[in-house]
Amino acid sequence: MLKVALVQLNPHVANIEENSNKIISYINQAKLKGVDLVVFPELSICGYPPMDFLNFSEFVNNCNKAINKIAEECTDIAAIVGGPLVNPLPEGKDLYNAAFILEAGKIKQTIKKTLLPNYDVFDEYRYFEPNNEFQLVTCKGVKMALTICEDLWNLNSNPLYIKNPMDELIKFEPDLMINIAASPFSYTHPQKRKEVLIDNISKYNIPVMYVNQSGAQTELVFDGNSQVMNTDGTSFCMRSFDEAMEVFCVENNYILPLDNLRKTYTQNADFSEYELIEWALVQGIRDYFKKSGFSKAILGLSGGVDSALVQVLATKALGVENVLPVLMPSQYSSDHSVSDSLKLIENLGCKEHFIVPIKSVYTEIENTLKPFFLDKPANVTEENIQSRIRGLYVMALSNKHGHILLNTSNKSELAVGYGTLYGDMAGGLSVIGDLYKTQVYKLCEWINKDQEIIPNNILIKAPSAELRPGQKDSDSLPDYDILDKILYHYIEENNSANQLIEMGYEANLVNRILRLVNMNEYKRKQTPPILRVSPRAFGSGRRMPIVAKY
Amino acid sequence: MLKVALVQLNPHVANIEENSNKIISYINQAKLKGVDLVVFPELSICGYPPMDFLNFSEFVNNCNKAINKIAEECTDIAAIVGGPLVNPLPEGKDLYNAAFILEAGKIKQTIKKTLLPNYDVFDEYRYFEPNNEFQLVTCKGVKMALTICEDLWNLNSNPLYIKNPMDELIKFEPDLMINIAASPFSYTHPQKRKEVLIDNISKYNIPVMYVNQSGAQTELVFDGNSQVMNTDGTSFCMRSFDEAMEVFCVENNYILPLDNLRKTYTQNADFSEYELIEWALVQGIRDYFKKSGFSKAILGLSGGVDSALVQVLATKALGVENVLPVLMPSQYSSDHSVSDSLKLIENLGCKEHFIVPIKSVYTEIENTLKPFFLDKPANVTEENIQSRIRGLYVMALSNKHGHILLNTSNKSELAVGYGTLYGDMAGGLSVIGDLYKTQVYKLCEWINKDQEIIPNNILIKAPSAELRPGQKDSDSLPDYDILDKILYHYIEENNSANQLIEMGYEANLVNRILRLVNMNEYKRKQTPPILRVSPRAFGSGRRMPIVAKY
Repeated sequence: MLKVALVQLNPHVANIEENSNKIISYINQAKLKGVDLVVFPELSICGYPPMDFLNFSEFVNNCNKAINKIAEECTDIAAIVGGPLVNPLPEGKDLYNAAFILEAGKIKQTIKKTLLPNYDVFDEYRYFEPNNEFQLVTCKGVKMALTICEDLWNLNSNPLYIKNPMDELIKFEPDLMINIAASPFSYTHPQKRKEVLIDNISKYNIPVMYVNQSGAQTELVFDGNSQVMNTDGTSFCMRSFDEAMEVFCVENNYILPLDNLRKTYTQNADFSEYELIEWALVQGIRDYFKKSGFSKAILGLSGGVDSALVQVLATKALGVENVLPVLMPSQYSSDHSVSDSLKLIENLGCKEHFIVPIKSVYTEIENTLKPFFLDKPANVTEENIQSRIRGLYVMALSNKHGHILLNTSNKSELAVGYGTLYGDMAGGLSVIGDLYKTQVYKLCEWINKDQEIIPNNILIKAPSAELRPGQKDSDSLPDYDILDKILYHYIEENNSANQLIEMGYEANLVNRILRLVNMNEYKRKQTPPILRVSPRAFGSGRRMPIVAKY
Repeated sequence: MLKVALVQLNPHVANIEENSNKIISYINQAKLKGVDLVVFPELSICGYPPMDFLNFSEFVNNCNKAINKIAEECTDIAAIVGGPLVNPLPEGKDLYNAAFILEAGKIKQTIKKTLLPNYDVFDEYRYFEPNNEFQLVTCKGVKMALTICEDLWNLNSNPLYIKNPMDELIKFEPDLMINIAASPFSYTHPQKRKEVLIDNISKYNIPVMYVNQSGAQTELVFDGNSQVMNTDGTSFCMRSFDEAMEVFCVENNYILPLDNLRKTYTQNADFSEYELIEWALVQGIRDYFKKSGFSKAILGLSGGVDSALVQVLATKALGVENVLPVLMPSQYSSDHSVSDSLKLIENLGCKEHFIVPIKSVYTEIENTLKPFFLDKPANVTEENIQSRIRGLYVMALSNKHGHILLNTSNKSELAVGYGTLYGDMAGGLSVIGDLYKTQVYKLCEWINKDQEIIPNNILIKAPSAELRPGQKDSDSLPDYDILDKILYHYIEENNSANQLIEMGYEANLVNRILRLVNMNEYKRKQTPPILRVSPRAFGSGRRMPIVAKY
């Protein structure tokens, strides 16, 4: 029997020392449980994605020194740790994305990644040379086909790569597959992951052990969901999003957990979409603050649904005492914008909030700028000024008290540019910038499923920026039901205007919306990082030119 | 004799219709000159870089339709046009980066790019499958080895790729090399390009024709510099940065220009660094505005060297009547901050400027926020408020009058975070964000070489943000001479702290500066696009994680 511990580490990118210490600590815990092999995720020594730190030779050297130090701890136990490996040949990229097999106090073997994802948020071919040599890893007589993340993901009818590493490895007759991964969450990903593991088991007819990074790195949230799956389809899953270690026993080509697993072995694929999204956003906020060395958040609470949701998520992530809501009513603010916010504050039990009016400052700015407006009529300028006064207030308060400002823009607004740069688009982290407005409502409903946390009045009133008398979002934008569908087809599915019109959407509306999306690329360039929960988030997953015309 | 026209197109990214019309117009001009073959740059049909537009199948279809339409014009003439080519196989990426050879009214042949750059600002492996088949192109009996940009750039001792396409093509005994490129400018690039062409000629012993895109696409400026080079080392260069067509004659394996070339065949490599940088920045501003459909710029003129330089560059790019300087003095502004700015305005002949004081608005904000500052002492908050009032003013004026705000931050400030988000870091385009402060001074000297355009007093006074009484940059930062050297070694050369200390820089200073660079990644995430003139600009060329710790 082989006892294997899977550790779904939540590393801190580039923090090699902290990551090493954690890895060593897990190895020592595993020793106490009689484990033979401990397996850590892809690039676990430096965390995923290390990005251009990989271009610093000293950074790579430090990763390798740390792995050698970890190897010294591997006596009476073996470990698999992910890290960058220097390519000894002059030809090709300088590095491989590798798994280091540590045993008997040293590096026994290295296995290199073959398929390098370079789409969406991934840039691996920027750093790594693809592998072209294949060999198994053996531990206590068990022969293992060890692959790295993407290596298992090429099994469809339109494969992105021209080869499958498992097609080579299966020739050596392995007993099982091990895949070490750093595979970020999106609400469609757990289901795809499940299918990919099933497809591999079906094709190669051996069980798989899968270990994935957990925790958030800026905009990417990793959902762990590490698991084993047998050829009969039974699977045993680790809890999601959080760091964890579980021990599994391999015997007669069958894998079973040593202890009972939490969540009764539930796949992330079997949770509801909004439960997963809530989980991801809370983890995303928590790790952004923790890994940045901050504990306190500030945000502007407008009385609308977006800021209410962010307030709730931040409270869950950081604790009610660490989130400061600021109400900044103007002359155009409805009474309920304040009363609804106060109700939310009460529901959450916030001890502190500020109410800072913007009118007197607005008037002073208006008076100062009037001579320079050259008698031109009021337009979006005046609305933007109000939004920017609010941005200035919350930034000043965050500077004074040491908060990070949470941005409350949603994906629909960001898509069509319905927001003010340096005003409501300001912040250190965009919490719900990957949720369309209709998804924002659905997540609020999920949050309110057991009790009314977000006041119902916030959920039923018509959305408004309240920047001029009686303004409604629907004055400028189509209903979110239809807007969000068009945006989804364009952004998530890369459909064209013509394709959308063929689907039955009204031509003028489609052209207007797509034009808005394209022309507002310059605004999105300047947004804070956006926590990614969809398969196509604004940010590094969608790279569009700014001065283009299409 | 073969007559070849090289056209260094300045395309508009994604504007397939406009690019096609231009291409057809050049083909018709070439016909009138009796040209046999017209050669356009890499991806000329859609402009480089098209980025994620390539993920839209309709976009690719439209490129291919446009190329077919151009082919219809190719009667009695042949043309080479760059564009995306659909990969007919299910395996591998869906596209190739290709050259379409058009002749006798149709697409006669396609040549695919082998080496796909995926470093710095390049992401080609995100979209394209590398080529693995080799063949020559023939026109009027002349056998040509046609390659695409990076295909010629793998000739050093530590090559990035494991093969050289010319090693395959030379086996077919071509008469000359043609390389179609989209190779962005940096001040080191013209020299490298010259060396690469010489290396290829030396190795393969045939002449080369090189055609490169011109003009700017958001942050990337393409310097054209298209040229032919013979095996005896003689070269004939086209003018830089601007769109142009030149006809060359190929006879007995020797290439000569049909007409005299401007600039007496000068290589960009032979111009001075600051002449090229000025050229690039002016082209960068001009194309950003033109391709965005704007003509007028606004900027805050502080009396310092950075905004003075941006004012001059914008005036050269857009015309003095299209640049509106705004002076926003505070109680901490020195008298000369206004008088020096007015002198610059006079030197340039600006008809209009605004002077908008910030004191009354600052006082109103201070009074409003005082109760919420909870008696904490003055800190950077108050400085940021002043900067953000200025940001709010210039954004309001730009919204009211239809300007784009030019950002005036330099690379030294951006590196260490010496700037205010949503204040002086605001803008649609960062003009000098890729120039260290010491380079800013050198470019000013270059501009003043014949007459004092930038008032000398601006160049000799000590740099100051003027956000508190008597403030100087040197209160917070080391001398720019030393700061910029450390930054250059870290940012351009990826040296580590230890390597810098070994070079002789003071350890505490090095650690402090590198820490500042790393911790301010969150600010740089929100900067406007930065015109790139160095080999490593902030933006897509340097991708660092935000919550990392190293």
